[in-house]
Amino acid sequence: MSIFTGLSAFPLTPLHDDVVDERAFIRGIERLTLAGVDSITALGSTGSYAYLSPDERARVARLAVDHADKTPVIVGVGALRTSQVLTNVQNAEDVGAAGILLAPITYQSLTADDVFELFRTVTEHTKLPVIVYDNPGTTHFAFTTELYGRIAELPGIASIKIPGVPTDPDAARARIREIRAATPDHITVGVSGDAFAAAGLNAGCDAWYSVIGGTLPEPALRITRAAQEGRGADAVAESERLAPLWGLFAEFGGSLRVVAAIAEHLGLAPASCLPLPLQGLNAEQRSRVAEVVRDLDLDE
Amino acid sequence: MSIFTGLSAFPLTPLHDDVVDERAFIRGIERLTLAGVDSITALGSTGSYAYLSPDERARVARLAVDHADKTPVIVGVGALRTSQVLTNVQNAEDVGAAGILLAPITYQSLTADDVFELFRTVTEHTKLPVIVYDNPGTTHFAFTTELYGRIAELPGIASIKIPGVPTDPDAARARIREIRAATPDHITVGVSGDAFAAAGLNAGCDAWYSVIGGTLPEPALRITRAAQEGRGADAVAESERLAPLWGLFAEFGGSLRVVAAIAEHLGLAPASCLPLPLQGLNAEQRSRVAEVVRDLDLDE
Repeated sequence: MSIFTGLSAFPLTPLHDDVVDERAFIRGIERLTLAGVDSITALGSTGSYAYLSPDERARVARLAVDHADKTPVIVGVGALRTSQVLTNVQNAEDVGAAGILLAPITYQSLTADDVFELFRTVTEHTKLPVIVYDNPGTTHFAFTTELYGRIAELPGIASIKIPGVPTDPDAARARIREIRAATPDHITVGVSGDAFAAAGLNAGCDAWYSVIGGTLPEPALRITRAAQEGRGADAVAESERLAPLWGLFAEFGGSLRVVAAIAEHLGLAPASCLPLPLQGLNAEQRSRVAEVVRDLDLDE
Repeated sequence: MSIFTGLSAFPLTPLHDDVVDERAFIRGIERLTLAGVDSITALGSTGSYAYLSPDERARVARLAVDHADKTPVIVGVGALRTSQVLTNVQNAEDVGAAGILLAPITYQSLTADDVFELFRTVTEHTKLPVIVYDNPGTTHFAFTTELYGRIAELPGIASIKIPGVPTDPDAARARIREIRAATPDHITVGVSGDAFAAAGLNAGCDAWYSVIGGTLPEPALRITRAAQEGRGADAVAESERLAPLWGLFAEFGGSLRVVAAIAEHLGLAPASCLPLPLQGLNAEQRSRVAEVVRDLDLDE
């Protein structure tokens, strides 16, 4: 079975005084492995890849692989310049990554041809399987289904990380069918946007590329296993139980600041673990997070 | 008089096979100095700063200062992480920059407080005067006038680079008055978005932070000097003469690809001088550019 199925957990890369806190990162990787996630994606958006130097990224990738036991480790390689991406790809290969995750990050906007050529160049330079990372909220690049199809035909493309699905179950199923119709059979489709995970898995997504899975693997596994075992209603019920958490994601400008605050609150990361200029949540927001952690038993 | 007035020319940083073409860059700096621009801003968006490594940026900044004769050189220092910005600031100081240009570039979105703290930290670490670079098209951060005001109170802030003005002259004047009312008297306001330059200067902007000024200084100087000498109608007439160029900027997704194609067409930069994945314009688009260059006598 493809490693690009089930729950892929995206850990934070916690910083302490602008230096990667390696002990906290390793402890996080070991927790995920013990919890039994299906794969770990280090250096995703949740892992602050875009903020780290090539050397920091190579080191974090190595720590992830060295401490993940038999859990496959996928490594985010995105960068603004193609040659920088290729450096990250080489480093991911060198440390023994099982796959790579590539987002077309932008400063100047990119055309569809620019993005296609980026993926063509990368797949030409590596034998590692590649996840196409569609994250318009951070990259400001809008993939079309047609571009998914063009890129997915490249040798080495293994999966597409999509940014959520429609909330209506029929519309969600139709959307996944549309992506499958445009892409080869071996391509898996993984949902992201944690609030959409149950809906996405129930609609036929093969994987969940999960922010909370990287810090709170237990509830993420409950949703994933329920959907995989055909207990779609249980997956939805667990997702609905977590609605206050999804509410904080929406209210506080995305998942990263909230998950970092949870990790700090639970002692899994040092205080102010995000790279500046990201200050993280303020005191009042943090007390709201702590309340939700307690009410939802996320500290168990 | 403040160096943050008049025409600030933003040169390209041409690459050849993914390496900075230092000879082409130096030739460009010498052309600008000879033409008599008021300042040179190296490593602006037009100078591809976001794509270059800290070492490449330090080298380009040094070349600019070393070859600009008495023309003040401002250096772009923006980066995703505050500590990376501080490295670039230190390097700009070391090479003798006269000022720095700082945009709050984003991967995760930034709050107003994140951006304020970024500018506070930078101004605390340097005596170089700082231009606040508001470029929502690339940073996806939306400044408010109130945030201009908070940041402009910081010691060391010298100028604000605004992203255009309303096309109606009365509305443009009102907008500049609004910014002046919110900021201390020593802060200069510079317009960007070349199509808005004549309107912005006529509405009272002190400076034009200019893309074409970095590659085609003569027409940019004609607009600037006309506006400075109170010949507003002449500034507008020259800007209107260049309308086919502004049209290409709008049609081809911004100024950078067009100006790079012009520089390549005129032999001022090697072919494909932008950092990949930016492929630049295609053959058909380039022939349109060549036609406009010829029709507007931009090759003189």
